[in-house]
Amino acid sequence: MKPTTAVLLFLIVCALIAAGDEVLAIEGQTGEVPLSAETQACVSCHMLYTPGIVHDWLKSRHSKTIPSEAAKKPALEKRMSAEDIPENLLRRAVGCYECHSLNLDAHTDSFSHMGYRINVIVSPNDCKTCHAVEAQQFAGSKKAYAYQNLAGNPVYWALVSTVSGMRKVENHHLIAEQPSAATLHETCFGCHGTKVETKGLKTLTTRLGEIQVPDLSNWPNQGVGRLNPDGSTGACTACHPRHGFSIEVARKPYSCSQCHLEPDVPAWNVYRESKHGNIYSSKYQQWNFDVVPWVIGRDFTAPTCATCHNSLLTSPEGTVIVERTHDFGARLWVRLFGLIYSHPQPKSGNTSIIKNKDGLPLPVTFAGEPATEYLIDTPEQSKRMATMSGICKNCHSSTWVSSHFAKLDSTIRETNAMTAVATNLMARAWQDNIEDNANPFDESIEQLWASQWLFYGNSIRYASAMTGAPDYATFKNGWWNLNVNLQQMKNWIDIKEEVQEKDR
Amino acid sequence: MKPTTAVLLFLIVCALIAAGDEVLAIEGQTGEVPLSAETQACVSCHMLYTPGIVHDWLKSRHSKTIPSEAAKKPALEKRMSAEDIPENLLRRAVGCYECHSLNLDAHTDSFSHMGYRINVIVSPNDCKTCHAVEAQQFAGSKKAYAYQNLAGNPVYWALVSTVSGMRKVENHHLIAEQPSAATLHETCFGCHGTKVETKGLKTLTTRLGEIQVPDLSNWPNQGVGRLNPDGSTGACTACHPRHGFSIEVARKPYSCSQCHLEPDVPAWNVYRESKHGNIYSSKYQQWNFDVVPWVIGRDFTAPTCATCHNSLLTSPEGTVIVERTHDFGARLWVRLFGLIYSHPQPKSGNTSIIKNKDGLPLPVTFAGEPATEYLIDTPEQSKRMATMSGICKNCHSSTWVSSHFAKLDSTIRETNAMTAVATNLMARAWQDNIEDNANPFDESIEQLWASQWLFYGNSIRYASAMTGAPDYATFKNGWWNLNVNLQQMKNWIDIKEEVQEKDR
Amino acid sequence: MKPTTAVLLFLIVCALIAAGDEVLAIEGQTGEVPLSAETQACVSCHMLYTPGIVHDWLKSRHSKTIPSEAAKKPALEKRMSAEDIPENLLRRAVGCYECHSLNLDAHTDSFSHMGYRINVIVSPNDCKTCHAVEAQQFAGSKKAYAYQNLAGNPVYWALVSTVSGMRKVENHHLIAEQPSAATLHETCFGCHGTKVETKGLKTLTTRLGEIQVPDLSNWPNQGVGRLNPDGSTGACTACHPRHGFSIEVARKPYSCSQCHLEPDVPAWNVYRESKHGNIYSSKYQQWNFDVVPWVIGRDFTAPTCATCHNSLLTSPEGTVIVERTHDFGARLWVRLFGLIYSHPQPKSGNTSIIKNKDGLPLPVTFAGEPATEYLIDTPEQSKRMATMSGICKNCHSSTWVSSHFAKLDSTIRETNAMTAVATNLMARAWQDNIEDNANPFDESIEQLWASQWLFYGNSIRYASAMTGAPDYATFKNGWWNLNVNLQQMKNWIDIKEEVQEKDR
Repeated sequence: MKPTTAVLLFLIVCALIAAGDEVLAIEGQTGEVPLSAETQACVSCHMLYTPGIVHDWLKSRHSKTIPSEAAKKPALEKRMSAEDIPENLLRRAVGCYECHSLNLDAHTDSFSHMGYRINVIVSPNDCKTCHAVEAQQFAGSKKAYAYQNLAGNPVYWALVSTVSGMRKVENHHLIAEQPSAATLHETCFGCHGTKVETKGLKTLTTRLGEIQVPDLSNWPNQGVGRLNPDGSTGACTACHPRHGFSIEVARKPYSCSQCHLEPDVPAWNVYRESKHGNIYSSKYQQWNFDVVPWVIGRDFTAPTCATCHNSLLTSPEGTVIVERTHDFGARLWVRLFGLIYSHPQPKSGNTSIIKNKDGLPLPVTFAGEPATEYLIDTPEQSKRMATMSGICKNCHSSTWVSSHFAKLDSTIRETNAMTAVATNLMARAWQDNIEDNANPFDESIEQLWASQWLFYGNSIRYASAMTGAPDYATFKNGWWNLNVNLQQMKNWIDIKEEVQEKDR
Repeated sequence: MKPTTAVLLFLIVCALIAAGDEVLAIEGQTGEVPLSAETQACVSCHMLYTPGIVHDWLKSRHSKTIPSEAAKKPALEKRMSAEDIPENLLRRAVGCYECHSLNLDAHTDSFSHMGYRINVIVSPNDCKTCHAVEAQQFAGSKKAYAYQNLAGNPVYWALVSTVSGMRKVENHHLIAEQPSAATLHETCFGCHGTKVETKGLKTLTTRLGEIQVPDLSNWPNQGVGRLNPDGSTGACTACHPRHGFSIEVARKPYSCSQCHLEPDVPAWNVYRESKHGNIYSSKYQQWNFDVVPWVIGRDFTAPTCATCHNSLLTSPEGTVIVERTHDFGARLWVRLFGLIYSHPQPKSGNTSIIKNKDGLPLPVTFAGEPATEYLIDTPEQSKRMATMSGICKNCHSSTWVSSHFAKLDSTIRETNAMTAVATNLMARAWQDNIEDNANPFDESIEQLWASQWLFYGNSIRYASAMTGAPDYATFKNGWWNLNVNLQQMKNWIDIKEEVQEKDR
Repeated sequence: MKPTTAVLLFLIVCALIAAGDEVLAIEGQTGEVPLSAETQACVSCHMLYTPGIVHDWLKSRHSKTIPSEAAKKPALEKRMSAEDIPENLLRRAVGCYECHSLNLDAHTDSFSHMGYRINVIVSPNDCKTCHAVEAQQFAGSKKAYAYQNLAGNPVYWALVSTVSGMRKVENHHLIAEQPSAATLHETCFGCHGTKVETKGLKTLTTRLGEIQVPDLSNWPNQGVGRLNPDGSTGACTACHPRHGFSIEVARKPYSCSQCHLEPDVPAWNVYRESKHGNIYSSKYQQWNFDVVPWVIGRDFTAPTCATCHNSLLTSPEGTVIVERTHDFGARLWVRLFGLIYSHPQPKSGNTSIIKNKDGLPLPVTFAGEPATEYLIDTPEQSKRMATMSGICKNCHSSTWVSSHFAKLDSTIRETNAMTAVATNLMARAWQDNIEDNANPFDESIEQLWASQWLFYGNSIRYASAMTGAPDYATFKNGWWNLNVNLQQMKNWIDIKEEVQEKDR
């Protein structure tokens, strides 16, 4: 299909604009930083059609610097890790075209737009052009596998589809149906990422007449483990939202809080109630979230999520405390998130490859035995714990830190034991034919059991790990709930057995 | 009753103060802006007695501008929409007396205070003197009818009174009592607004001796659909709190979050967890919430509630993107808030006039059929959807926006279908005499049914509409709860039937 | 055990550093304020080993002022209340050594560290050296007794241990075990404070070789009623976190929100949803949280927790509105927190001494009769209510304030009555042998009963008291829950009785 007359007319108008005041205004905002001709063309029209994102970019570092300058920064101040930036990108701002035209051949979502060939989605593999180390670290992390770890694991898939699928009543039975793509997109895959595929081109009627654009499935989505149409996985925009790509946004806890939330992963909720979270909320306006490296004491006086888990930190004297990582589990030795029990971190970000002694792709058996060969060993655990403790010790004494983590160890043991008690009750319900073990998530005792580890056990462990949120661990989603819930499991088994008894 | 000696003495003191340094101090703070003699008198005494609100006003635009100047602003910058401001208000600051003395004859809450006749409550009809267009738009909205829509609808009234009323036990039965005015004031009518009536005058003993003031029922209250003693409805102060009347406060999401909250209307909770909310929380300190018009890209780079629902927006080039509205549903085509099912927006803000095919004042029947004649038609729905999409498209592509709203459509269909499944289960419980359909909110299966649409269905739809909060839609108050809850409805029906069975 | 060679080497390095640039840098940051030689030694090494807390202190008032100057401030501006500061502290910054070396003989946690004798914990008794009035007020408050009031009260201890203890299944029964110290530390005692005792010295291997430090039980902890190793109670750091000890942090609501949280004490949750909370969130960046005295209208235009409960407030003209207090109940007449019923504030901060007519250490009997002799009388209640109302009246009229508190009275009566209905249902369950009254917290009907007052009754009262959060009081944790929960108590009693009936 050819461009319509309206589109051609529009292109002429854009060309005129591009030669006139609009571009000067843009140049004014970006100072001396040169834009490529292609990006000038993008901006001159999109300034009118999508001014929000153009101005977001104009305020960003990408519009105000060029890679050849960024490459000259001292090692600790560098935000760009690639050594071999292509020559044609070196001396121009990182603009629309620079990112949206990378690796065109790999992208099934590339298309011709107003005379330029571009991709709809800029993937981690594209960002890698300048941010090679970060992209590589990310690629091996659990985050990069967030889609596959759900979709490729039959147990987790049973949970996903039981949770998000509709129900109908037939002959007095509740029948579960498979969830729709639209709902999965808004539930589990909203955070984990969708599988985006190009179905072909579609024609859109816009203010400029008809244009053709790729027809993408499961789009839009910025989930962290998204499968991209160029074959890569992940979305840098999950934490560095378009088109500012800000380090400030990623360092503030609100980014993490989009997905790490109660009731299942209450990292944000616990942080907010902790001493660290209190100090952050009270003082962050006086801190600096934009500087690299990030200096303890000078730039902040209490950690955010990024401080402990990701950022390059130095002391005010310039000593490196910890290196930057975009493998988000790299500083963690234990996985608090219980599946079904808390366990050592997996070796690979791809957890769908695990097989435990039950023959299931779970890091621990139903009886609590870890699938050791897939999990990091004790020396690696100790090494990671030392890295994390090394961060803590910039503000806390050795005793403080070791006592804190000893408490965490105790809490992991206790919550795992409480899960085991619930698992045994559920096993009894299965044995006594009160519920059916075909799907461990679709009947009431099973759902109470899942709440035990997925909600309450997890919450207690997060509260323990972040040295805060005692009320959370007690009454909000914690020990109170763990014990009340266990009592309800038992009550329901008892009453069902009493009534069944009388049926005989 | 006449003013006591103490009051007379006080008035003399105030007069002396008014002639002295205190007033100079006030003039200093308001620059060249003249105050009326009456407002000078108010301020000179209330500076001592209620300094908090006097200083709040002194920091506000009302103390720093005069209507005749405000009227000269270019059309897009105007904050004052009336064309015919009374002559006596034109050239003085908008002070205490200017607002509290309007339309005295209409106010049953007017009284004589220290020699001045004033009203206790400044109503939307008073604000209309300068803000005519806003008051008129508001007057037709669902917000203006928020009290009447509850109090004048027997079904909603059954919900209100069952929720907020006390219980007693008689002969082993729980007996519901009608809720007290005090409790209604703090529950439903806290947001919806109370009916404020003047019961007469009452005598107060104050630091100045005895004074007489109006004795108002159900006061204080700033609910958005308040019935005022001048016969008008609403409270501008619901969103523009006294005595700053700030546009900044109304544009920030905390104002909306006072009422639009989990578990029933979780707009705030969902926004906070969304990408938009994350960017807002991370960056709002660098944005401008006080300028008119509000410019996309320049003043903000992610929307708050007001951006999409209310504010006048322009592009950085000055093109109007959307006009301001104080009819808060004017840009909405579908009503996500399920009563009992999600449905097209009602034509009138007064929803108590609706009659559906069940003969009930509900926009949809129990079986899911909409009361079409009371709801906006398809062309109007499309028009409003185009207005809203037009806002989105300043930052997002056409495909992005249309795919987003297609997902919302799917989610509305699915959550409505899930409500229908629950409604059918409840109907079976009624038919089998497990519960009694006289009041659909006062027994356990009925309460589980109400949770399905009022809490979980609503939450899932809000999460869908705001393109965020996947964890909210999954585990917090979403699909998990929808399915666990349905299972519990069925369990309770089953066990009751089994036990009843054996009774026969 | 003697210092190792590494330690000796380290001390030499520190001494060299102390003589060089590092100290100049410190002096630069603290301007003309002299540091003691001991504190210089601490800082010169800890600048390398714990830079976070050193820099936090460097930004604090303690590093920038000396007591002799602080003592010269006008009475209302004073932050230091002691009259007789020891001579050796008067003319040096309040540094590491000044605080960590106080009252060495009283501290079982004192030890020799790099040649200096210091205490691990700085207790309220140490802070009292300069902040005598605050320490004394605190010492009599419920906060100071927060540990003892739980640990020394058999009823509350039953709640604590039932909530936090593990369970095992034996012969189809759930058996409760005593909670571990680690879990108590992270649940109830996380806020209430732990009992910290010195078990002796322990040897740590650090980067400097082996060092000896006190081995403390239940440490670290900053709970407000902590039992300290010097015999004192409390932790100033609960609200003024180390090492900034900021008045700003204590005045912002996030500090209070670490412990005063839903579901049991939802002060923060209610505040956030209230009009006061909305204005705070929207405007606090324009307020001053660091100035003493705190001036209504000038420094803030809506209250935080500290405004109403603690701070010294004056009007812009300098009139004292209310004196500062660190007895956090001193301005309260009624205790909203239901144990089991809301009641007048206790006379003593130590509530474990109460004996009611049931013979239990509860302020009210199970039937609702208050233990009057342990609670403040009507004149004292009126006096405190007048103090609080006096704060409100700086922004609100007398009628507004009195109508507000009349609503609160009604809500207290109604929620207490609703608790009584639940208590009667539980009594019936005990009488009919459905549950066992040995422990009133360990079976399902009992747990529903506890939810009624501990979660829902409390929440409704907090929402009433803070004139906000109507949705909270309705659907979040309020009347809806109160009535749904009551229905569930009754259902469970009914079904158990029906099934028991058939057993006979």
